[in-house]
Amino acid sequence: MQPTPTVRFESFSDGVFAIAVTLLALELRVPILQGTYHQSFRGLIPLIPSILTFVLSFISIAIFWVNHHQLTQKITTITKRRVLWLNVLFLLFITVIPFVTETVSVNSHSPLAVNMYAFIMFSASVSFSLLRYWIRKGVGQDHVAMKRSLIGPAFYFLAILAPGLSLALAYSLLLIPPLFYFLPKESIS
Amino acid sequence: MQPTPTVRFESFSDGVFAIAVTLLALELRVPILQGTYHQSFRGLIPLIPSILTFVLSFISIAIFWVNHHQLTQKITTITKRRVLWLNVLFLLFITVIPFVTETVSVNSHSPLAVNMYAFIMFSASVSFSLLRYWIRKGVGQDHVAMKRSLIGPAFYFLAILAPGLSLALAYSLLLIPPLFYFLPKESIS
Amino acid sequence: MQPTPTVRFESFSDGVFAIAVTLLALELRVPILQGTYHQSFRGLIPLIPSILTFVLSFISIAIFWVNHHQLTQKITTITKRRVLWLNVLFLLFITVIPFVTETVSVNSHSPLAVNMYAFIMFSASVSFSLLRYWIRKGVGQDHVAMKRSLIGPAFYFLAILAPGLSLALAYSLLLIPPLFYFLPKESIS
Amino acid sequence: MQPTPTVRFESFSDGVFAIAVTLLALELRVPILQGTYHQSFRGLIPLIPSILTFVLSFISIAIFWVNHHQLTQKITTITKRRVLWLNVLFLLFITVIPFVTETVSVNSHSPLAVNMYAFIMFSASVSFSLLRYWIRKGVGQDHVAMKRSLIGPAFYFLAILAPGLSLALAYSLLLIPPLFYFLPKESIS
Repeated sequence: MQPTPTVRFESFSDGVFAIAVTLLALELRVPILQGTYHQSFRGLIPLIPSILTFVLSFISIAIFWVNHHQLTQKITTITKRRVLWLNVLFLLFITVIPFVTETVSVNSHSPLAVNMYAFIMFSASVSFSLLRYWIRKGVGQDHVAMKRSLIGPAFYFLAILAPGLSLALAYSLLLIPPLFYFLPKESIS
Repeated sequence: MQPTPTVRFESFSDGVFAIAVTLLALELRVPILQGTYHQSFRGLIPLIPSILTFVLSFISIAIFWVNHHQLTQKITTITKRRVLWLNVLFLLFITVIPFVTETVSVNSHSPLAVNMYAFIMFSASVSFSLLRYWIRKGVGQDHVAMKRSLIGPAFYFLAILAPGLSLALAYSLLLIPPLFYFLPKESIS
Repeated sequence: MQPTPTVRFESFSDGVFAIAVTLLALELRVPILQGTYHQSFRGLIPLIPSILTFVLSFISIAIFWVNHHQLTQKITTITKRRVLWLNVLFLLFITVIPFVTETVSVNSHSPLAVNMYAFIMFSASVSFSLLRYWIRKGVGQDHVAMKRSLIGPAFYFLAILAPGLSLALAYSLLLIPPLFYFLPKESIS
Repeated sequence: MQPTPTVRFESFSDGVFAIAVTLLALELRVPILQGTYHQSFRGLIPLIPSILTFVLSFISIAIFWVNHHQLTQKITTITKRRVLWLNVLFLLFITVIPFVTETVSVNSHSPLAVNMYAFIMFSASVSFSLLRYWIRKGVGQDHVAMKRSLIGPAFYFLAILAPGLSLALAYSLLLIPPLFYFLPKESIS
């Protein structure tokens, strides 16, 4: 493959990220608010799972975007076809996040829905870790920060297994990778 | 955090702005126009609140975009993680604007719907003012124009409180930040 | 206003154009195809007005995009606030095109629907001509090609008036600006 | 036509590609998952054709994107109006892919639906091959790799004809251009 500059690689990816986060909000169902002011609050109750899953997915996609952003800065050209296609695979999982988000908010008590959500998050984080590995290897940095790359996949993997035991545990596991990301640390990579 | 150029920061933000304004128009419900020419006009009546809220939200998002545009010109790299995350938070509220716009157009007589709309506008303007503060502080300009930054949050805050008293007052308060923006002034910042 | 580079002006506009053309296709209703092969063709009949209006709107938006593209090449910075806001106004009408396209395809025999479609096209072409006028004036080219700028607005204006007389005439008038654009000519401007 | 840089040509195209792939996923219908864990799996059965067609269309669009990406690298300006308009025509077919994808997933046993899907893929690949031909001709490379350009159109053409004989054959033919693309070869062009 001839080396190609990363400009369009980035602009295509940014387009997918931007549309995915905006479509998340499109899946919030418009409530019908009727009766007195106090009665109309009841119209908001069915929105609660949607809002929680919207915020969780928005932040999760944003973290993927921040990491993708920092990763592509390391390179100015793509020289391996596998990097191009790992990125396409990663973006495929990103575009499915609004779908599994709505699935889990509509079926918030279904273990299968949480399995599906965790499976897509796991797949996105594994494909991102592979993408990161190959981009770093291309610039001679494959020895660093691989441990960090395992955290997302590991907790998402546990979250795929957990719903059969306890939904509360599964939801908690899904919160860990985003929360972990905000912990103070020496260097982000 | 290693300093990162603002290119992708801007292209991701522009993507979100562009999709948010286009989705606003998607929420206009296609009318069924039947009968004689004069009768068919009745099919447009239910569209009136949608059109008014569409125009208000479109212009409000456009103003946020113009300000964001002018703000990012001041910098070429982002050196603080908090700037990245304040931008993500700000964009989260931007993506929710189409949802609250449709909520208020479907429930145009509900004080709670107007509360929700005003709350999201307030949150967007507060997160934008914080983003502006930290970007300016990073380039040693934190002493200027902070007074202007308080106008949006202040009127949107009053608009959160107003619907209980009077819906007309609440809608009027929501018009002030956009109108204020078009008043002649010495310098825009 | 401090002069601002046109990069984000263009990327925001391109985002809106790209989303508007893609949403056009989203409004094609998925047909239910049942029975024998020959019977299943009947499922496509209701799609015909949608497909025709989709193609007309797609090409009309593409022409606006090509012209916008050629216009912004003339400048590297924006120095007038009115240019920024005329662009926002122009994009507002672009975002409404998918809505009026669906309105006219759902109500293809309604003169009022055709009035609405023609009105939005007229508004988009007038705001674009004004945008072109001010951008050219800023670079000392306001004397050229203004005659061409009147063709779109003029035919779209006639198309607003025509539906009361004849729908066929109105649809024909809407075809003229796109067709005109493809006629051979000395220079495009 | 004055020569125009390819920047906006690319950003508009990337926008359309990014939105088209993301809208594909929007067409996955959210399942209702009820009953015991094993019962709830039944809610996923109707999703199977949607998921298969989603993956096929996603990869097909991604291949078009990768090729478009590599093509535009060869040029820095567009000097022919026909290149601009072939690109618009190509993008028109790209925006219709989510519609035919949903048509084929909703009507997965209808030969007509597969005809429509194959016809849009054929049209996209023909318009892309023409676009490639004219861009290469402009840089004096029209003698190379034209044979490769015929593979997509040829198999998609057969897939238009096949559904009358056998749906399985038609679906298999639709898989060939993407699979072919991943075969090892000396140089990609």
